[in-house]
Amino acid sequence: LQTKLPAVGTTIFTVMSTLASEKNAVNLGQGFPDFECDPKLVNAVTDAMTSGLNQYPPMAGVPVLREAISAKLHKLYGRSYNANTEITVTAGATQAIITAILAVVHPGDEVIVLEPCYDSYVPNIELAGGVVVRVPLTPGTFRPDFDKISAAISPKTRAILINSPHNPSATVWTEADMLSLQDILAPTDVLLISDEVYEHMVFDADKGQTHQSAVRFPGLAARAFIVSSFGKTYHVTGWKVGYVAAPAALTAEFRKVHQFNVFTVNTPVQYGLASYMLDARPYLELPAFYQRKRDLFRSGLAKTRFKLLPSEGSYFQCADISEVSDLGEADFCKWLTSEIGVAAIPLSAFYGDGFDQRVVRFCFAKKDETLNAAIERLAKL
Amino acid sequence: LQTKLPAVGTTIFTVMSTLASEKNAVNLGQGFPDFECDPKLVNAVTDAMTSGLNQYPPMAGVPVLREAISAKLHKLYGRSYNANTEITVTAGATQAIITAILAVVHPGDEVIVLEPCYDSYVPNIELAGGVVVRVPLTPGTFRPDFDKISAAISPKTRAILINSPHNPSATVWTEADMLSLQDILAPTDVLLISDEVYEHMVFDADKGQTHQSAVRFPGLAARAFIVSSFGKTYHVTGWKVGYVAAPAALTAEFRKVHQFNVFTVNTPVQYGLASYMLDARPYLELPAFYQRKRDLFRSGLAKTRFKLLPSEGSYFQCADISEVSDLGEADFCKWLTSEIGVAAIPLSAFYGDGFDQRVVRFCFAKKDETLNAAIERLAKL
Ligand SMILES: CSCCC(=O)C(=O)O
Ligand SMILES: CSCCC(=O)C(=O)O
Repeated sequence: LQTKLPAVGTTIFTVMSTLASEKNAVNLGQGFPDFECDPKLVNAVTDAMTSGLNQYPPMAGVPVLREAISAKLHKLYGRSYNANTEITVTAGATQAIITAILAVVHPGDEVIVLEPCYDSYVPNIELAGGVVVRVPLTPGTFRPDFDKISAAISPKTRAILINSPHNPSATVWTEADMLSLQDILAPTDVLLISDEVYEHMVFDADKGQTHQSAVRFPGLAARAFIVSSFGKTYHVTGWKVGYVAAPAALTAEFRKVHQFNVFTVNTPVQYGLASYMLDARPYLELPAFYQRKRDLFRSGLAKTRFKLLPSEGSYFQCADISEVSDLGEADFCKWLTSEIGVAAIPLSAFYGDGFDQRVVRFCFAKKDETLNAAIERLAKL
Repeated sequence: LQTKLPAVGTTIFTVMSTLASEKNAVNLGQGFPDFECDPKLVNAVTDAMTSGLNQYPPMAGVPVLREAISAKLHKLYGRSYNANTEITVTAGATQAIITAILAVVHPGDEVIVLEPCYDSYVPNIELAGGVVVRVPLTPGTFRPDFDKISAAISPKTRAILINSPHNPSATVWTEADMLSLQDILAPTDVLLISDEVYEHMVFDADKGQTHQSAVRFPGLAARAFIVSSFGKTYHVTGWKVGYVAAPAALTAEFRKVHQFNVFTVNTPVQYGLASYMLDARPYLELPAFYQRKRDLFRSGLAKTRFKLLPSEGSYFQCADISEVSDLGEADFCKWLTSEIGVAAIPLSAFYGDGFDQRVVRFCFAKKDETLNAAIERLAKL
């Protein structure tokens, strides 16, 4: 049996989480919180289950949840998505992205990804028969290079995938970045897949920083699948619920594939989320919640020989290891997990060619005591 | 934007459920129970959520659930699947099937489906770039025709999809059927995708009828993805959890796609199912539970002018409408829903060419009072 995905092994996240638990290491590798979600959210799901909401929901998601999503997008980013025809609930953001790709990428179509990027994008494009076109983010700063992006567009380009706040680099695109992308795409038919799963984790609002959702830019929104994740926003990564917002014509194509991929998503979880979303505070308070954790972790790391990169958004903090170790990133992460007891992710895992720039990613979506325990161990280096 | 799936509209199940609720009809269309699941199962999921089991589970599913699945397959069908390397938990059976297809079907590969068949199979194959080879089940009886199946196999055949108990016809393959398939496939490399979502709904055990899982047949199991569904077995179709059992080499390919499709499946639901599965009674009692409903519904329908087909398994009952109406199946189902107040599904929805044999499908996974209300309305015809 010839494999469809020769380059694919077990994801780095699984590998490092497994090693971390074997070695009893503090796991700052895979991105997930080690604290509890709001008990109100659990209660809301339990209420739905005990009210007998346990059978198939509508294919696109339960209407109350789609309306809550639409209302949130309007409130935060000023565009009205029709809850019936433009919002689809998905089994997480990963399922949203593969479904969008399978829906619009024809064999031979080119799809642009900006490296480093999340590890599902490339195999997703390959499964659709698409051709992956890799454009590097600027080495060192991870900022988009619009000359390179522009040069990568060809008559065969079907779509471009962007991701801000960015995993793994924790950079956030500016308004100027989004406007540049909008200008470049204006004369083309290129579709946009905008992975915004960390939309509610943008820091330093006092310095004017804010999430520049593609929703805000009419020339982008009109061609975009906007992807987000409830798991990341509400501290329930294991629930696997996300959504896609896209103009009706794109949503129609999306749903053709969605209905024959997962068909639909857990009913009581959808009702629970819809009722929980009636209160906007949990996501409005998220930036401050995570900014405090970022600052705690950074001030700890500042006392080590790791060189800190900026963390503008997401729940990640990258660090340069060149003054800490002579090892390559991947070996360093294994060594750090096994010998020092702290798991991290090598950035090379986000590049097709395994490019090693001596930078690793830590996840700070952890209890303060977990972060402090990690800092104590890292300080030994 | 050229569509990837030109033939795909909204599924018949969504269309008929929507019409049924608009017309306040008794919905015997889409296959789902209108009664509650066991409160113990709800409690088990709630316990998992309140114990803080809300973050990413392992990609392949939580070990306790995979072990419970493996134990069940061994107990019922006598084969030992390795829970680590041969069982994967999926976001429902539909996601299991598309993932298996994406994992093994290369562009240009042929995949055999037996018509009538579930409506996701054909678009799934098309999305993988495969060529659909349709082999009809015997008209009238819906039995497999092994000469036709054998003749359909070519050097390009990658896989064959089978489904017993069968949706929509409610027929069940016999041991002789499975042995015939095993013989035909023996000299080939053709893979088997065995959709066994109604495995626990096979009736008339007193007449020796039993579910002939492909697991029981070594020559089939060695090449098979065995697909099943917790939603159907435990009356929670909206929870969207199923599984795939397959030999390690096939599972490895399956997981390469699975991890980049949904990555993984709702954590607390998995733990809840694992603890609920400790008691085998719920699935062991399911045949008797549904056989009683089948018999209730059949005895009611026997007093009408519908001609009943056999219902050997699944929760469906097919009926010939030729003495009831002059309409085609699809129009008849719309008329029946709107004017008589009972929703059913036309069998033509399960054929690529919309073949109309004047047969419709009723779902009897309903409260007795629902079935009685439907019978009362149908008796007017
Ligand atoms: C799907 S497991 C990976 C979680 C995550 O988003 C990350 O760590 O980057
Ligand atoms: C996924 S909705 C369809 C439910 C079902 O399996 C059927 O009615 O055949």
